[in-house]
Amino acid sequence: MSLPKQNDPAEAAKRAAAQWAASQIEDGMKVGLGSGSTSALVIAEVGRRVAEGMKITAIATSLRSQEQAESLKIPMSNFGDTPRLDVTIDGADEVQEGTLHLIKGHGGALLREKIVAMASDKLLIAVDPSKLVKTLGSVFQLPVEIVPFGWETTYKRLSDLGFAPEMRMKEDGTPYITDGQHYIFHCALPSERTTEGNAEALKHTVGVVEHGLFLGMANRVVIGSPDGIQVLEANR
Amino acid sequence: MSLPKQNDPAEAAKRAAAQWAASQIEDGMKVGLGSGSTSALVIAEVGRRVAEGMKITAIATSLRSQEQAESLKIPMSNFGDTPRLDVTIDGADEVQEGTLHLIKGHGGALLREKIVAMASDKLLIAVDPSKLVKTLGSVFQLPVEIVPFGWETTYKRLSDLGFAPEMRMKEDGTPYITDGQHYIFHCALPSERTTEGNAEALKHTVGVVEHGLFLGMANRVVIGSPDGIQVLEANR
Repeated sequence: MSLPKQNDPAEAAKRAAAQWAASQIEDGMKVGLGSGSTSALVIAEVGRRVAEGMKITAIATSLRSQEQAESLKIPMSNFGDTPRLDVTIDGADEVQEGTLHLIKGHGGALLREKIVAMASDKLLIAVDPSKLVKTLGSVFQLPVEIVPFGWETTYKRLSDLGFAPEMRMKEDGTPYITDGQHYIFHCALPSERTTEGNAEALKHTVGVVEHGLFLGMANRVVIGSPDGIQVLEANR
Repeated sequence: MSLPKQNDPAEAAKRAAAQWAASQIEDGMKVGLGSGSTSALVIAEVGRRVAEGMKITAIATSLRSQEQAESLKIPMSNFGDTPRLDVTIDGADEVQEGTLHLIKGHGGALLREKIVAMASDKLLIAVDPSKLVKTLGSVFQLPVEIVPFGWETTYKRLSDLGFAPEMRMKEDGTPYITDGQHYIFHCALPSERTTEGNAEALKHTVGVVEHGLFLGMANRVVIGSPDGIQVLEANR
């Protein structure tokens, strides 16, 4: 993942969000590091602060983020040594206005992102304004992580439930494989169910490992712009 | 898995159940082949019938069963070519009297077993009488398949829910790894929840891929004995 150009307004927005998010990390904290382009900017800023002397311990949500963090000499831990995190900073594909419900996982790391978020006292989401939506699924499809064995049967059952799954493919035409050795289906969110109802239906589908709906998990969302940032707080 | 001795009453019971179960397969059927010691006897009997000219197509629930079936020249397929099966014959660790709810997965293959069962019109379970219980979890713990990443945090959350998880280990002291590259936790079933409530709580735990409760899935259970068989039908 290349770092974005400085003169791109969308990238300036991501950078503003990432810098503010990284500024929320305090000395001594245990920190989850997310995946995706905005998280890469967060990790770069965290690396800068660590180089200046900030003492933290971090766990990454993807092998890619792990490699970036290690290259910046951010002290990395694991859940054996660090079972609870103070905060995880991550990006999102969509943030629903009001609820702060999220779609995550277009970076391919939804399962690890959700496990790390579940191990964190706080989840702080950093995005650019294009990620804010009134209805989840209006821009992005929902990534759903799938057991490779018998995926054709899982595909059929998800189709029957209205999720219109599409296998995520690599450029070489073979299925995308997650860090956990699973497939990803990109799914629609049928409007005849509530968001919670769609999450339930996915969880109850045998062969689904996890889905990219993060409901009631984000505590704060920071939205960057070239001129500054806006912080949305969850009413929880 | 070595084939059982002929003169052992428990093994004679398994053999009687397996022979009756295999006799339910008709020419032309698409068949799911289970895992475990009784399923190995089923596969042996199916292999004998195939050698005598019966035409079937099969899908196995474990690499081990796949290898046994291939060695017997049972024609094997996959879910790309064979998306629906007529019947799956499998064993179980426990069968609840009345409901025919099951605990499965002590052979280490619960995820594939559940995916194959979901793709089958009928699920026929072959067991010896020791598997019949009044309360699920009274003899066997429940196997639960777990994402390796962050398993310590999943362990903690399952402990907090009362499931008293224990990592399944290999004889060499390292964690058992399933065909799907996951861990297995052996769990207790807390009596303060219903069986359905326990299944729900497990499904909603991030990091759980699948659990070994098969609720409302078995259509028939055949219980072998040295003197014959008994067939229990689900009231569905």
